[in-house]
Amino acid sequence: MPLSPDELRPLVEDFLDGLELWPALHGQAESVRYSITVGGKRVRPVICLATAEAAGARAEDALPAGCALELVHTFSLVHDDLPALDDDEERRGQPSTWKRFGEATGILAGDALLAEAFRLATSYDTPHVARELSQATLGMIGGQYLDVTGTAPDGATLHKLKTGCLFEASVGLALWVAEVPEPAQAPWRAFGDELGLLFQIVDDILDGDGYVVTHGVDGARRLADEAADRARERLDEVDADTAVLREIVDGLAVRTA
Amino acid sequence: MPLSPDELRPLVEDFLDGLELWPALHGQAESVRYSITVGGKRVRPVICLATAEAAGARAEDALPAGCALELVHTFSLVHDDLPALDDDEERRGQPSTWKRFGEATGILAGDALLAEAFRLATSYDTPHVARELSQATLGMIGGQYLDVTGTAPDGATLHKLKTGCLFEASVGLALWVAEVPEPAQAPWRAFGDELGLLFQIVDDILDGDGYVVTHGVDGARRLADEAADRARERLDEVDADTAVLREIVDGLAVRTA
Repeated sequence: MPLSPDELRPLVEDFLDGLELWPALHGQAESVRYSITVGGKRVRPVICLATAEAAGARAEDALPAGCALELVHTFSLVHDDLPALDDDEERRGQPSTWKRFGEATGILAGDALLAEAFRLATSYDTPHVARELSQATLGMIGGQYLDVTGTAPDGATLHKLKTGCLFEASVGLALWVAEVPEPAQAPWRAFGDELGLLFQIVDDILDGDGYVVTHGVDGARRLADEAADRARERLDEVDADTAVLREIVDGLAVRTA
Repeated sequence: MPLSPDELRPLVEDFLDGLELWPALHGQAESVRYSITVGGKRVRPVICLATAEAAGARAEDALPAGCALELVHTFSLVHDDLPALDDDEERRGQPSTWKRFGEATGILAGDALLAEAFRLATSYDTPHVARELSQATLGMIGGQYLDVTGTAPDGATLHKLKTGCLFEASVGLALWVAEVPEPAQAPWRAFGDELGLLFQIVDDILDGDGYVVTHGVDGARRLADEAADRARERLDEVDADTAVLREIVDGLAVRTA
């Protein structure tokens, strides 16, 4: 029996709790640990583990890759919260990293999270895991730039970069972990693409912005359902037991937080 | 004939000039390019190329690794210059990146430089190049934390982290590129260690701080000469033509800028 999302999440939490940060970080480790612990739903690592298992690997084998994605996500939040960017003093009901540790340490915490992510991603024999992570990270930074400077051509481009890149990579990194040959990766990757879009639209519905502003609540709901349908269709094209990934699609479609 | 430092440096400059940044960076690429172009002596990549050639590889094969080190070094300067850290408005006679492009883009420029560094480092078949780069980066960030918070136990520890880690990695990454087996790497790495110390002491002599404050000018000069001597001794233990590396030691010992 493949592990359900509710069984995968504790694996991720345990791995992150037990993660030994690089000793040379010295006191900087405290703010890095704080940023990780304040963390949320662990959506990206759960997708990564579920994909790896569906593609024939053990879920555990994808833990370094999945948690590398979570650290990149956390890095982006830590830097986004900085006064020069979104100037957020709170994150998930707790002081944001820079508010808690000061701005200099907050900047360095993001830097260290990114470097730790690559330390995890390079623990595999293949360089593909870390290579795709670097590309996804660059796309996310590009999206952040378009957002901060207000230069995005449109909302879809912005969200595909800011959110989509890491979601696609949540699937993509798992494919490398499971050693899925490149020619067979396309439908999996198309699935990851739709998953990112689904996540973003539902996020906007919950926050009342983005797609809700451009398409109204009902229009956004319809777009979300269409993205979920397309995600399920992509899974139909994959020759594997994708029941858990379907459960993730269903969960993302109806989530309320 | 192995290439001299003055022949290696243009290879590095050409590679950096021609480096195609990841397209999804969009407008963020401009500040990344600016930060790279304002760059200095390219000491780390030159050491990396010279080590790779001495260890039996082609200097060209070490270009992605060497330039990844240069991008990590550049990332550290871009973030160090930020108002929350050193608050430097100039770098090498030009506006610092944040001063030129604004603070938000300056933060993102550092982030993108780090991610681009890992994209380069993961272009090799072996994960060792990127793995060691991540470890060196974490050490450097740990040193930056000790510096910013004034919590370093002593100057030697601080400099070993802030400067030493990337110098050691300049040698270390080259060893992976040249496929030097791990048991044979020790004397090369000990050489890199001394090289970092030599660079730091001479830096302090030129700036009149650090080792000059603790040991006086003559004392610091003596320490630099001793580090240079030990670096040469380490090279004696290596079974390879290390003439170019000796030339680099000589150059670092007497440099005036």
